[in-house]
Amino acid sequence: MSLREVLFGKPIPNDEAEEEKIGPLTGIPVLGLDALASAAYGPEAALTVLLVLGAGGSHYLGPIIAIIAVLLLIVQFSYRQTIAAYPGGGGSYLVTRDNLGTKPALLAAAALALDYVLNVAVAISAGVGALVSALPRLLPHMLPLCLGLLALLTLVNLRGIRTAGMLFTLPTYLFVACLGVTLLVGVVKFVSSGGHPVPVVPPPHLPAGTAAVSLWLLMRAFASGCTAMTGVEAVSDGVPVFRQPRVRGAQRTLAGIVGILVVLLGGVAVLCHAYGIGATPPGQAGFQSVLSQLVGAVAGRGVFYSVTIASILTVLCLSANTSFADFPRLCRMLALDGHLPTAFAHAGPRLVFSTGVIVLSLMAAALLVAFGGVTDHLIPLFAVGAFAAFTFSQFGMVARWRKSQEPRARHFLVVNAIGGTATGLTLCVVAVSKFAEGAWMSFLFIPLAFLLFRTTRRHYDTVEKAIETERPMRVVRAAAPLVVVPLKRLDLVAEKGLQFALTISPDVHAVQVRAQPEEGGELRASWKRRVEAPLKEAGLPVPELVVLRSTYRQVVDPLLGYVRKLAAAHPDRFIAVLVPELIEHRWYHYLLHSHTATLLKMMLLFRGGPQIVVISAPWFLREPKHPFTRALRSPRPSFKASSARKPAPGSS
Amino acid sequence: MSLREVLFGKPIPNDEAEEEKIGPLTGIPVLGLDALASAAYGPEAALTVLLVLGAGGSHYLGPIIAIIAVLLLIVQFSYRQTIAAYPGGGGSYLVTRDNLGTKPALLAAAALALDYVLNVAVAISAGVGALVSALPRLLPHMLPLCLGLLALLTLVNLRGIRTAGMLFTLPTYLFVACLGVTLLVGVVKFVSSGGHPVPVVPPPHLPAGTAAVSLWLLMRAFASGCTAMTGVEAVSDGVPVFRQPRVRGAQRTLAGIVGILVVLLGGVAVLCHAYGIGATPPGQAGFQSVLSQLVGAVAGRGVFYSVTIASILTVLCLSANTSFADFPRLCRMLALDGHLPTAFAHAGPRLVFSTGVIVLSLMAAALLVAFGGVTDHLIPLFAVGAFAAFTFSQFGMVARWRKSQEPRARHFLVVNAIGGTATGLTLCVVAVSKFAEGAWMSFLFIPLAFLLFRTTRRHYDTVEKAIETERPMRVVRAAAPLVVVPLKRLDLVAEKGLQFALTISPDVHAVQVRAQPEEGGELRASWKRRVEAPLKEAGLPVPELVVLRSTYRQVVDPLLGYVRKLAAAHPDRFIAVLVPELIEHRWYHYLLHSHTATLLKMMLLFRGGPQIVVISAPWFLREPKHPFTRALRSPRPSFKASSARKPAPGSS
Repeated sequence: MSLREVLFGKPIPNDEAEEEKIGPLTGIPVLGLDALASAAYGPEAALTVLLVLGAGGSHYLGPIIAIIAVLLLIVQFSYRQTIAAYPGGGGSYLVTRDNLGTKPALLAAAALALDYVLNVAVAISAGVGALVSALPRLLPHMLPLCLGLLALLTLVNLRGIRTAGMLFTLPTYLFVACLGVTLLVGVVKFVSSGGHPVPVVPPPHLPAGTAAVSLWLLMRAFASGCTAMTGVEAVSDGVPVFRQPRVRGAQRTLAGIVGILVVLLGGVAVLCHAYGIGATPPGQAGFQSVLSQLVGAVAGRGVFYSVTIASILTVLCLSANTSFADFPRLCRMLALDGHLPTAFAHAGPRLVFSTGVIVLSLMAAALLVAFGGVTDHLIPLFAVGAFAAFTFSQFGMVARWRKSQEPRARHFLVVNAIGGTATGLTLCVVAVSKFAEGAWMSFLFIPLAFLLFRTTRRHYDTVEKAIETERPMRVVRAAAPLVVVPLKRLDLVAEKGLQFALTISPDVHAVQVRAQPEEGGELRASWKRRVEAPLKEAGLPVPELVVLRSTYRQVVDPLLGYVRKLAAAHPDRFIAVLVPELIEHRWYHYLLHSHTATLLKMMLLFRGGPQIVVISAPWFLREPKHPFTRALRSPRPSFKASSARKPAPGSS
Repeated sequence: MSLREVLFGKPIPNDEAEEEKIGPLTGIPVLGLDALASAAYGPEAALTVLLVLGAGGSHYLGPIIAIIAVLLLIVQFSYRQTIAAYPGGGGSYLVTRDNLGTKPALLAAAALALDYVLNVAVAISAGVGALVSALPRLLPHMLPLCLGLLALLTLVNLRGIRTAGMLFTLPTYLFVACLGVTLLVGVVKFVSSGGHPVPVVPPPHLPAGTAAVSLWLLMRAFASGCTAMTGVEAVSDGVPVFRQPRVRGAQRTLAGIVGILVVLLGGVAVLCHAYGIGATPPGQAGFQSVLSQLVGAVAGRGVFYSVTIASILTVLCLSANTSFADFPRLCRMLALDGHLPTAFAHAGPRLVFSTGVIVLSLMAAALLVAFGGVTDHLIPLFAVGAFAAFTFSQFGMVARWRKSQEPRARHFLVVNAIGGTATGLTLCVVAVSKFAEGAWMSFLFIPLAFLLFRTTRRHYDTVEKAIETERPMRVVRAAAPLVVVPLKRLDLVAEKGLQFALTISPDVHAVQVRAQPEEGGELRASWKRRVEAPLKEAGLPVPELVVLRSTYRQVVDPLLGYVRKLAAAHPDRFIAVLVPELIEHRWYHYLLHSHTATLLKMMLLFRGGPQIVVISAPWFLREPKHPFTRALRSPRPSFKASSARKPAPGSS
């Protein structure tokens, strides 16, 4: 078992593909972790904005959460229809592309891609942030912790989605159970105490308000709270990962996610109001998260508190995983349409779109490094991408129903139109109220990504047009190529090169470039004895030895010049440049060699012109098991020196 | 003029090499900057150790500097002899190798290499440190400033040493002049005031002593002060850069450097004593360098002060340049002896050993990053390397004189033995007194570098033994190779590949790997019409089409397996794998392509076995000026499609 298999798992054959599929019970953690984890930062984000109102702030949380809950239900009904209409995966990109055209679809894809990348960065840094507030001595290592966690997630996801699902099921349900119990106990206490429960551990006192309530403030609080809605679109995009019946599985999963999320958000809103819990200023001494205050107030700081907090941390960290499930799938669709490099469409040995996973991971890492692992500032960017994608998708569905022959199309149209309008309006609110705080970056990223998609596609089209042909192959009656063999001296490596050269053409030019005037004179001196004589005797054509002088101590340029001249002199022939190469058995031995051969091959390919063909003739320092020696039926073994002596394994 | 030429200068032909040589006047700045700049940090380092003695500390500076001055003169006389004996460059490595053998020589080389790298890091960070204490708002950007300066120095040195010498002459002489005037005026005031001059700007009061004077303390102060001696060996190593008569030029340069240095150090010691100047605690508020206090006390804080301080800063920064002159030369010698990769021995287009320059720069950058641009801590490591190299070199000379027939050999032997003993004793003092503070790192680095040198050499020996041959070339009567052409479909790229394949062998196998079962069926369907028919009609051999299935969605492994099977079935033939490649005209377009071709070529070379040869057949998206089209005299132009349509230049 190789290191690769230990890390990434054994390759999965094509015919076992179906077994990697999941049902609703696994679907909720795999595709819903992101949405559910929002319960931990959505209310917190809204309350942080309301902080300036002092103790009065938490009164406004209820209405805000209520609006968000309504939005969530609207979005759920919209997406149910999307799932049914697109059992092959109805991500915003696909729905928009099919119904509104390529350009809006690419905008939706860009928005969604931004959302996924931000989700990874925000979730990881929120998780690590929570961990650090529990263990303050880890504070200086925040960024390395974030990056380590990211690396771990990347690894897990490169192994494949089912294994990933297993890993995430337990923490998700633990999170839901703990928070559910807390809210249930809290609500029971709230009711039984006649609306004035006594906190077990009282939350910190809220400071006096420093501002009056205003519509602008409430809008900003609502926009922040909307981060609680991110992640819901994941299910409609991920329909293909469900086992049959796919549509039902996906719809149930969506309903489960939205149901749990609404209950959690509602419970948090009620209890914050009941216990007078508000946000504490983030990034300052005495900071304590809203959920930590809430659990403490309801259940005290015992074992249950620790377990609940631990499950919140875990889920926050892992919620990044939703993006790992969906971002590569989005990229694959874009790649299949030619809007991204083909590598994104290529499923790796574990049936995972590895390029997408790695690119997501790198982009998130860049964000984490750029923001030093503290992503408070990223939250405003977050909602823009998500809501833009929602809106495109819903209006795509509206366009679809307008053209549809389906009897209930009119009914469906109304549902999607309501959904699209609601999310579109929310998008406007978020964009306006968060523009200065960072949402402007989304308006920079989305057009740039759009441009990237368009440019890529245009390039592929250009190449395709240039190389495509349907006609029969053209017959070229060219003579054998002129073979140029660059060499310094006649060692076994060069000898093998010449031997091969003579099997493909009678016209071989051995070219020596003398970079230093003093070196290499013995090649010409011994050429007759060592090359001409034996070949003539065997009645074979003899290679010509050409010596080039280099004025600037360079090898590549004079050779390139010679090859070009040769090409010009023989316009009707291919010029094959054969580079003899020593193959070492350890990669690091390559550091010891001058890389003239590699450079030469590159320059010939890029600058050589259409007649040039480049040949690499390897010579193995440690000869593989099946030696060429016996193979070539020459009177004496040709490569005896190489196979007879075996270099010590630990020679360096 | 290309960007490369703007940055690095035009290439210099071999026959202009002599013009790059220098005389003593340029030699002092180019090879002595390092030694001279030590005047700025040697006394400072000693006084910092003496700080615990309070105001009494500066009394001990005089004797310490006196010992150092004597050592300097001893070393100078020793090196005069080395220069005369080794006009081709008598660095510690060469002298030790010739007289004491390879192993001690490699130890000396390792010590010297460490010294050079540390010098770059310490000099740059000392310079930037001084700049930052003048302009405190640059403080947060210390590391970027260090790295920027390092990059600038690297660039200057990649251009070549004469240009570099020009750049450094003015600041060095300005530094010497300013400091000389300060010391002269100071000594005049000192004498005329009867030993009690009144400072223009009084230096900060020294704190009360916190420790009694002890031998250990004085030893540590001396060891720190010894950094003032680093850099002196540079001249003997750099003899070849002098123009004829080399030896005289180098000896004069050495005498000039040591003379100036002794005068500067002596002057500083006298005036520190006279004005009661001590060190201030480094890295704390109120820090002021000794030279700054001294210039202020003698001349006040006028224009002269500013010019002097500026020249000190400049020289500190630039003293790193000595290492840039000598480190690459040391590496070249090691490389010529096979102890370092050949790349170090290769002079670039500007007659500079570019690899050495770049490696030095990278190692210094790593040190700067690791220590955050603050290299106070590195000073202890510094002296160990320098004194170890001194000592090896002197004892090497002793061994030489013992075998010498030269009439005055005995006299010379005594001089070098005194030099070697003095520096050896100093090395012991430095190593012992600074071991815990960081000198242990030298004792880690030097053996590691030694091991690297030995391992490299052993590997080269192994390879050389394996590939070297003197016998006549063996004649191989193999048939034309079997050519394998991997292709997905028959576009113009693949067509050119097939066309070339047919010119070198009648046995061509076109191999299609179907990674996804659904794709690529049309190749087999159209093979007869598009390939077989036209070739048969022309009476040419017809390539065979082989379709391979891939279970794990991979392309490379099945191909490799097929090629190996072919090799086993035809043990008497070469197997040439021809990879058709699309050559784009912009490097970034390569991001868009799947790199299966590159991976395939690599795997074939490394794993294919001794019968395999790899051929790259390029097809140019933008056809170069001399199109193959007209060239190949086929009935109709072969590559019409490619040259007829020219893709838009700004296609992406």
